[in-house]
Order: sequence, then C-alpha cells, then structure tokens
Amino acid sequence: MPYDQQNPFARILRDELPSIRIYEDEHTVAMMDIMPQAEGHVLVLPKEPAAELFELSEDAAAAAIRTARKVAIAVKAALNPPGMMIAQLNGAASGQTVPHVHFHVIPRHDGIPLKIHAAERADLDELRVLARRIKAELDKPASA
Amino acid sequence: MPYDQQNPFARILRDELPSIRIYEDEHTVAMMDIMPQAEGHVLVLPKEPAAELFELSEDAAAAAIRTARKVAIAVKAALNPPGMMIAQLNGAASGQTVPHVHFHVIPRHDGIPLKIHAAERADLDELRVLARRIKAELDKPASA
Repeated sequence: MPYDQQNPFARILRDELPSIRIYEDEHTVAMMDIMPQAEGHVLVLPKEPAAELFELSEDAAAAAIRTARKVAIAVKAALNPPGMMIAQLNGAASGQTVPHVHFHVIPRHDGIPLKIHAAERADLDELRVLARRIKAELDKPASA
Repeated sequence: MPYDQQNPFARILRDELPSIRIYEDEHTVAMMDIMPQAEGHVLVLPKEPAAELFELSEDAAAAAIRTARKVAIAVKAALNPPGMMIAQLNGAASGQTVPHVHFHVIPRHDGIPLKIHAAERADLDELRVLARRIKAELDKPASA
C-alpha cells in the first residue's frame, strides 16, 4: 500500500494538525483518540511512514509496542479498567481508517461493547483531562 | 496478576501439551490457534512468563511484535486476506482466555464478523495444511 504523505496522522506528526499528545520519543508519539471507542483510548504512532504493518520496519514496530506497553501501564494506573486491548488494524476490512500504522490502547469493561470506531468526536476538554491523568502516570519514574 | 505455571500456554512452551508451531526463536513461539476466529489465525507467545502486558518486560514485548510482524507478512503472502488484525488482550473483560501474554494475528475479510474466540475447535489436519502454507512463506529469505 503506497504511503499517503497527506493522511491525517502524517499531518499530525508534522504538527500541521493538532493532537492531544501524552508521550513522545525519538521513534513514536502517543495521543488521545479524538473519536474514542472507550474512555482512555490512546493511539500510538511510529514516526516511520508506513500505511500497514507489512511495510513498517521491525525496529519501528518494536518501538511502537514498547510505547504501547508504557501507555497501557499508565492508562491502567490512571483509570483502572478491568481489561485492556492492544489492537493494530491493517486494511479497511479490519477497520483501519487512517493509512498510517497505529496501535490502539483501549480500556475494556465487562459487558460494555466498544463504540464503533471514528463514529463520534469526544469532548476535547474531557480528553485533555484524561490526557493529564495518563501523562501524570507516564511521568512517574516507576513506569519509565 | 500472578503467573500460573500450569496455564495451557506455559505447558505448550514446556512441550507438555501439543501445538502446531510455525515459528520459534530465542524469545518467541508462533502457533496456529486451535479455536480460530478466522482461517489463518496465529498466536504469538513471548517465552517470558507474564499473564498480562503490564507484567511483561519491554524487551519481550518488542520480541513478540517482531515475530507477529513476520507472521502477519507470511499469513498475508500465504492467504492474501484483505485485512489483518493484530490484537493483544489483557483481562477477561477484554476477552483474554489464557493467562499468558499472547498476540493474535487474525486475517479479516469485508463483512465477515470474527467468530467468537475459543468457541469451536478447528480440524487439526486443516490447521496443519494452513501451517505448512504459512511456514513456507516464513522460510523464504525475503520475509526474514
């Protein structure tokens, strides 16, 4: 799949579009999903341009899961959901909506189905409050 | 979550239970899911004992996603599904059924919902045929 330099995540990574970031390092960015499937839904993006996992380098995939793990630990500490799903979707048939590789970190609760992805925009102020709570956990030395 | 040394994946990793493996390296094993949610459903296990991602080391998580990427490329080459989902579930509320960290690699097809996980055992001979097709792709130099 050819990489589209104008896809929304490419533009976010270039700071051409806004995002609510909770973490960034040399290889990855983590930000709140603005159309969350559950409270505390975070997206982890490798900075390397690749539409699907098949085209992403092994090293970039490894960097992304390292960040996703850090984020999952922080979301658990901040919100304490009983379950947590990490998901990385490739192709429209799997539910991928933006053609830049991303890992979903999604809190899960018993008997509460996930909202349909990208269906409803969250209140940005509420997202910023969640982001601060998760970021506070990420900034603690223990979760580094 | 305390680690149960007698969980089925711990026993598979110790060769006390059978499995249909398609890949193994120092840190990971990949095998066919015997109760697949779609044709070509593969599980990637870090060898490090951990019930959930929160307790798994960063290095083991990185090793697991490196193998999951290799496997996803091989499954795509072997079966050419239009979509591919990578999922790692933590806690019963997220659908985790075995308390040893594992990454699902699941082919997705438009309009075909996933089967309920762990609901129906697949024909083992059919799984072995699929395993051979995927393994043949993994063994090609290009996907190494």
